[in-house]
Amino acid sequence: MNSQPVSGEDESNGKNNRNQMETDYCITKKVVELCKLVLQMTTRSGSGHPSSSLSLAHIITVLMYEIMHYSPQDPWNPANDRLVLSEGHAVPIVYAAYADIGGVYGIDPQHPYILSIEDLKTLRQICSPLDGHPNPQSGFPFFDCATGSLGQGLSCAIGIALAARLQRIKKHVYVIIGDGEGREGQIWEACDYIIENNIFEIIPVINCNGLAQTGPVLSQQSAHKYSEKLRAFGFHTFVVDGHDPGVLVKTFKKILRLQSPAAIIARTVKGWGVSQLQDFVYHGKPLNESALTDAFMQLESTTASEPETTPDNCVHVNYVPQNTSVTESPRYIPLPDPDFEKILQGDRYLETFRKGLMSTRRAFGLALRETGFLNSHIVCLDADVNTSTYTSYFAASFPERFFQCGIAEQNMMSMASGLARTGYVPFVSTFSKFMVRAFDQLELALISGASLKLCGSHSGVNTGADGPSQMGTSDLSYMRTLSTVKNSDGERLMTVFNPCCAVQAWKCVHTMMTLPHSCYMRTIRQDLPILYDSNELFEPGDAKLLIEGKDVALMATGYMVHACKRVVEELHDAGIHVSLYDCYTIPVKPQVVYTAAENNNGKIITVEDNFGNGLGAEIASIAALQEFSPIMVKQLFVKRIPKSGITAEDVLDFVGLGV
Amino acid sequence: MNSQPVSGEDESNGKNNRNQMETDYCITKKVVELCKLVLQMTTRSGSGHPSSSLSLAHIITVLMYEIMHYSPQDPWNPANDRLVLSEGHAVPIVYAAYADIGGVYGIDPQHPYILSIEDLKTLRQICSPLDGHPNPQSGFPFFDCATGSLGQGLSCAIGIALAARLQRIKKHVYVIIGDGEGREGQIWEACDYIIENNIFEIIPVINCNGLAQTGPVLSQQSAHKYSEKLRAFGFHTFVVDGHDPGVLVKTFKKILRLQSPAAIIARTVKGWGVSQLQDFVYHGKPLNESALTDAFMQLESTTASEPETTPDNCVHVNYVPQNTSVTESPRYIPLPDPDFEKILQGDRYLETFRKGLMSTRRAFGLALRETGFLNSHIVCLDADVNTSTYTSYFAASFPERFFQCGIAEQNMMSMASGLARTGYVPFVSTFSKFMVRAFDQLELALISGASLKLCGSHSGVNTGADGPSQMGTSDLSYMRTLSTVKNSDGERLMTVFNPCCAVQAWKCVHTMMTLPHSCYMRTIRQDLPILYDSNELFEPGDAKLLIEGKDVALMATGYMVHACKRVVEELHDAGIHVSLYDCYTIPVKPQVVYTAAENNNGKIITVEDNFGNGLGAEIASIAALQEFSPIMVKQLFVKRIPKSGITAEDVLDFVGLGV
Repeated sequence: MNSQPVSGEDESNGKNNRNQMETDYCITKKVVELCKLVLQMTTRSGSGHPSSSLSLAHIITVLMYEIMHYSPQDPWNPANDRLVLSEGHAVPIVYAAYADIGGVYGIDPQHPYILSIEDLKTLRQICSPLDGHPNPQSGFPFFDCATGSLGQGLSCAIGIALAARLQRIKKHVYVIIGDGEGREGQIWEACDYIIENNIFEIIPVINCNGLAQTGPVLSQQSAHKYSEKLRAFGFHTFVVDGHDPGVLVKTFKKILRLQSPAAIIARTVKGWGVSQLQDFVYHGKPLNESALTDAFMQLESTTASEPETTPDNCVHVNYVPQNTSVTESPRYIPLPDPDFEKILQGDRYLETFRKGLMSTRRAFGLALRETGFLNSHIVCLDADVNTSTYTSYFAASFPERFFQCGIAEQNMMSMASGLARTGYVPFVSTFSKFMVRAFDQLELALISGASLKLCGSHSGVNTGADGPSQMGTSDLSYMRTLSTVKNSDGERLMTVFNPCCAVQAWKCVHTMMTLPHSCYMRTIRQDLPILYDSNELFEPGDAKLLIEGKDVALMATGYMVHACKRVVEELHDAGIHVSLYDCYTIPVKPQVVYTAAENNNGKIITVEDNFGNGLGAEIASIAALQEFSPIMVKQLFVKRIPKSGITAEDVLDFVGLGV
Repeated sequence: MNSQPVSGEDESNGKNNRNQMETDYCITKKVVELCKLVLQMTTRSGSGHPSSSLSLAHIITVLMYEIMHYSPQDPWNPANDRLVLSEGHAVPIVYAAYADIGGVYGIDPQHPYILSIEDLKTLRQICSPLDGHPNPQSGFPFFDCATGSLGQGLSCAIGIALAARLQRIKKHVYVIIGDGEGREGQIWEACDYIIENNIFEIIPVINCNGLAQTGPVLSQQSAHKYSEKLRAFGFHTFVVDGHDPGVLVKTFKKILRLQSPAAIIARTVKGWGVSQLQDFVYHGKPLNESALTDAFMQLESTTASEPETTPDNCVHVNYVPQNTSVTESPRYIPLPDPDFEKILQGDRYLETFRKGLMSTRRAFGLALRETGFLNSHIVCLDADVNTSTYTSYFAASFPERFFQCGIAEQNMMSMASGLARTGYVPFVSTFSKFMVRAFDQLELALISGASLKLCGSHSGVNTGADGPSQMGTSDLSYMRTLSTVKNSDGERLMTVFNPCCAVQAWKCVHTMMTLPHSCYMRTIRQDLPILYDSNELFEPGDAKLLIEGKDVALMATGYMVHACKRVVEELHDAGIHVSLYDCYTIPVKPQVVYTAAENNNGKIITVEDNFGNGLGAEIASIAALQEFSPIMVKQLFVKRIPKSGITAEDVLDFVGLGV
């Protein structure tokens, strides 16, 4: 790439002296320049969405040159206003503007590169920071969060705005949402949150170009309906011509003076300025090389008439904030070993604990509260189940860092992504079953480079009486899938913890804190015997040998460790010497499996109370990797859809996992 | 269970002669009876949600005794009005009413059992049809769809109502939604669909009891806000006292006369009638045995004053529809072998096909259209990507069986569940990446016993230029997880097809049609060489040996079959004899793996262009199951988050899967 490192900042101003006619002329002229760049780069890459980009040309130009306060030379500056392009496929227009402005890109703030016009030709190339959709991890830090799976940007913006509030930074977050995109329910979850918390720092712009991928947008996504819906939710709304620079500037400025949430509904033309692109079959399709000349001529003819006097360089970024020192990195203070006797003083649960029982969900909640005291960057998000997941402990101690999202898991997960990308360590917690609701949001958060600490409670079929709609049975497998992948920093995307004992759960919270990447902990509803001393160490990748045998190794996880323990003890009495391993984490280090096999006759049985493809797939994959001393792995898991049962044992019998 | 088979039907009527005072008295008296049953059964089971149930007591009583038209003796009758209890945890009140009415339950319409008052004691027991949340598969056919993961019921109701329209059955679907639940964005996706298609047959009731699990419902979920929002979306709204029988009856009757969508917003009291249950800590918590007597006294004191004349048996189901013959079962007519030359006559794609190329997504689309001609029960749902998934072929031929859901995957999946549960075979299609958005809805559909035929296009990182937000990389693993489980009929929950060739994709659509259970097909964006003759057979569980070798077996799936083919051919030229298997389906039959190992030196390499835990985990799990002739399995998959690249090969190199 033909780019050069830069440092320092440019101050620029002067546009305040322009009259309306001059402003129109300046912006329109810039719009035409940028549109041409969009057509060139998409045609060259052979893919991309020029028509969506053109519908946003005036809005993006007005935002990036007239309204937003940011330093193009320091996109990492936390004081910058931010743009979240929720309809991510329209990103070429942003790339064009950013190159025109000479903004910097790169992975490392110490080694920034200026984005040149020439660089635009690399759109979508494997070596380029200019990904097909906004992607900060590809080296484009102008964006905090990846977008492209629709409907998530507004929620990410909430996370960004909440982080700014915690950091006492005043900034605005502009969010561009496609009209077709607004069909995603997550948008309305985010709207509820914005209104409830009066997050006027977020300014959503609905881009009503009237065309979706396969035809006109549906009637419920018209500009008129957006206006009615947003007003009903609680927004001030402004329906404007999205290609009128003067109106756009005036409306944004008006909204910036309001102290309550407002949204712009912009009527635009998909493929603005280029007739050929205005046919909906051009969604996601660039022009042929041969059509460019005519398209350029059409674009040029749209330029407003030149005013008598035109300022040189009349459109440029108008404001650079003082370089705010980057927010202090999350401090890491180790979580001390648990002293539950002391911690539970005054808690009526102490009595249960003194019987040697505690649920892992409660230990998680207590540990989370403790980390809250040690680290001011810990925040916690809940979907109206904190009295079940026990994030209620954290909520009571740190109300300003606890975000009640209501029963809206998708919005919660994307909010966490925004918070994580702007300096916080979010613990996201709900039932493990309902975590499934936000898997797509989780994937986009991970693509964004967010480090999330997830906790799903009521995991496995041992949950019992509530029935299958409340039992987390696919989460372990899904999270294992993510654990097979690394992010662009070479960090593992996910480490899974599935503790069976309260001490272990507490200590795993400590480990989740120390790991730089995302983690997922599953917790169990029931009070269970405590198995470990409070100074036991639990390394990721390890497993604990609870009972030593020689005939066969049972490798169990979560609740099933307790179920297996009873069986193994009985078998030992009967002279059958089974080893019992507590596999509290995934991935498992291969050596753990090889040692277990070596000491147990080459025979392993895995046991988990969720659907297959979890621990069993992990152990079998390791076992099958080597050829010299064959290891046999039999996998026990939930082989049929569970139902309600009064006790865990009833349900385990039903699904074929009975003692 | 103390129940007896029944047959035939009871006609009952007589309530039309009652005056308002008599009506109030009759309903309130029944409400008290039912509330007592709710308290008894939840206390006995030691779990359940009595307070939510009591908030619905009048609404459920009015619906089930006064408003709904249905036959309690034939819950399978497609002409019955239906109840979807979206806030599923309140189900005890429905069980109480159904037992009082003497409705029947069971798995088999030929062997129905009457639900007795005595049976209520079995709530949540493993042998009971009375699951913790509505669950038709546990033997409670009064419900079409399982609920409990919140926000999905309204979408299921759309599917039920659309099926009725296709079958020309006039019936109504009543949907009860909790106020906290309405935070889920999916509710608003469903509202858009209902308004757009004027589905006035659905009558949503928002139960505004003002208390969520962990405290008061959030301010955006107040009765007032619901009224404003629903009106903005396009509903008539009626805000009523949810404990006033007269008002409820009148409002329902008024709505039934409208021919456009209307919703009831009912202000209710959580724990109505029993002061102790009105504290929010009682969410999901039954009373102690000792508290029942006082609770009963409180309930009795609510009864309206007795009118001068009271009809005997004054509240009872008022209408039994004529027994409508159950809709004809889906006819199975085999899909003929593909003759693409003929099928593509007049299609400009014919030229590409004549070069020996076709994408699997196009073959899927063409096959789907063909099945549409053969089977009138096939319906298709799209999330505004039919021109990419090629369900556009079906849409053009069968507009009345094609449902455009807009960009709202959650609503789409739950709609499909409703359609599947009422006689249709829904093909649900979007990008495989966006299928993730509806995994939770898919799980609830499968719990409901729905058979869905899913197709996710643009699967794997070979999709290339659009970047990671558009690439399906976790879907194969997730669907494999579901393939490890069986439903209550003993059917596999999911079979996965991942074809690499157009002929194969066509034939796999045929197989998807013949399998009774749910299937998932992944299709590929690119045009690829056709590898198979049109009369080749593709059994589930099999794999195709494309190139025979002896040194090592490459077992590849999807796009990677083509990538591996080039490598294997080169290696053969260099004297290294690698076998190539096309693993187009999961689960794989163990014998396929054992044979591959036996003939290839005990060495297998799996190759897939998605995250791990897919084909590799499948093969390794099988390999590790046996101890006698050890099999070594090395898994190649996407080991880092992908990014945009111009060609598939660029991206494959980037993620470590380069040739």
